[in-house]
Amino acid sequence: MNNDVILINGEIVSLEEAKLDYLNRGHIFGDGVFEMVPVYNGRAFALVPHMNYLFDYTVKTKIPGIYTIEELIAFHEELIAATGYKECEIYTQITRGSAPYGLGFPAQSVPELVMFALPVNRDEQRAKVAKGVNVITVEDERWQNCDINTLNRMPEVMAKEKAVVSKAYDALFVRDGKITEGTEASFFIYKDGILWTHPEGKHIHRNITRRLLKERLSEGLDLQIMERAFDKEFALKADEAFLCGPRCEFVPVTKIDRSLINDGKLGTMVSKIQRAYLDFVLSECPNR
Amino acid sequence: MNNDVILINGEIVSLEEAKLDYLNRGHIFGDGVFEMVPVYNGRAFALVPHMNYLFDYTVKTKIPGIYTIEELIAFHEELIAATGYKECEIYTQITRGSAPYGLGFPAQSVPELVMFALPVNRDEQRAKVAKGVNVITVEDERWQNCDINTLNRMPEVMAKEKAVVSKAYDALFVRDGKITEGTEASFFIYKDGILWTHPEGKHIHRNITRRLLKERLSEGLDLQIMERAFDKEFALKADEAFLCGPRCEFVPVTKIDRSLINDGKLGTMVSKIQRAYLDFVLSECPNR
Repeated sequence: MNNDVILINGEIVSLEEAKLDYLNRGHIFGDGVFEMVPVYNGRAFALVPHMNYLFDYTVKTKIPGIYTIEELIAFHEELIAATGYKECEIYTQITRGSAPYGLGFPAQSVPELVMFALPVNRDEQRAKVAKGVNVITVEDERWQNCDINTLNRMPEVMAKEKAVVSKAYDALFVRDGKITEGTEASFFIYKDGILWTHPEGKHIHRNITRRLLKERLSEGLDLQIMERAFDKEFALKADEAFLCGPRCEFVPVTKIDRSLINDGKLGTMVSKIQRAYLDFVLSECPNR
Repeated sequence: MNNDVILINGEIVSLEEAKLDYLNRGHIFGDGVFEMVPVYNGRAFALVPHMNYLFDYTVKTKIPGIYTIEELIAFHEELIAATGYKECEIYTQITRGSAPYGLGFPAQSVPELVMFALPVNRDEQRAKVAKGVNVITVEDERWQNCDINTLNRMPEVMAKEKAVVSKAYDALFVRDGKITEGTEASFFIYKDGILWTHPEGKHIHRNITRRLLKERLSEGLDLQIMERAFDKEFALKADEAFLCGPRCEFVPVTKIDRSLINDGKLGTMVSKIQRAYLDFVLSECPNR
């Protein structure tokens, strides 16, 4: 295993050689976008839809395209091979590149692609959350375009830190009284055979795991999905609740702001969904 | 003149030697704060209040303090001496430093201070705007804490670019129908002896130039200041309008979204304020 490498503009280099330019617009303005792809059994999961999101973010932020989908797929494979990780996440960010200081787009700048691998131990991660986690709520003070994964992540940094200080697993953002999502995951509740979650749109991140649940897994599990915003009081009356996303998979939530959901009973639906998800993931990324 | 230097954590290094880490949280999350200080006649103007703002931003974002005000003053002087610039701006940013990827604050990371000089030609800059500029309005989609100068500047980058494409000098943010401010400056209108501007608070940046106008210059110019939000229609009926800030000084605005303010007549109040401001600046930063 070797995590001392990073991929910059298509070239794998050692971290020691890698030298970030201080005028990189990612460093000065957070002027870039990112996406993160989970790797199972040495294979990137749902890579094409993830990269389609990434392309969409570059279009929305007007960062010129520099690599094709085929190149990005190859870069993922090269990075997985170079690090030797079977289980990891590949983080990709594209900034508007380096240019003399100034808010407006530079006349001449070459976007910079940076990719690196984050090792994960998913068995350990799953064991830690199996009995359910507690979350806190924080006011959603983010900007209006949360559906673009930009490098402007201060609100999420501050919310996550607030969760850490409160000994909570994560923070749920609340905008206009309604729960939008967690800092890196969608939030769902389950009640009487129906899954509820905030509708897609500008106020939540795009999320492949959520999409998979809706488009692939819900039918087999006989689940109906209601995309409608709800408040904390409604969530506390749910049978079960969970966070879901490519990083955390499906995490049962049993407490919000120290109040128990369904008297703290764990239920079985989240673990059923998690199993169905993992079955699907492993069918796409079999152990070779 | 030598702009091939940068100050990193108190040390002036050549750009070639400067080594910034790709995992710097400024580069990944925009997890840092900044301030910019104008330099006249080789002297930093209003340095202490600027640094007090910077300290306040680090407190609000919980970035540990690493340098005293005396050190920051010394760093400004060293950078001015090293570059040889008489007229410039000193940009300072403090990030939460480098750490393994993760939203929560890292257990161990040392904040990183980066400072560099931006040369300016203020005579040229003033001549370009002397006859007034046009601005556009854009929806204010920023987060709720605009009074903290974080490195999350995507909304301002996109707004400025929209202005550039529209051949406008700048963009005015409009939140809930009211003009908040420009991308890097406060917006004022002048009508019947009264200056109007959006009140201070979480929806606008802190601005030393605005404060100086209010606390030092307005009395001598017999100006009353009304801090109350107003819409574009109200602004178009003003006698004069202007942007003000440490970077642009006082810039007359004659058009908003292609509509003329006061039939495009320039007026004399903005240039009077600009002269009073410059007198004050030069009294603080005399030519040695």
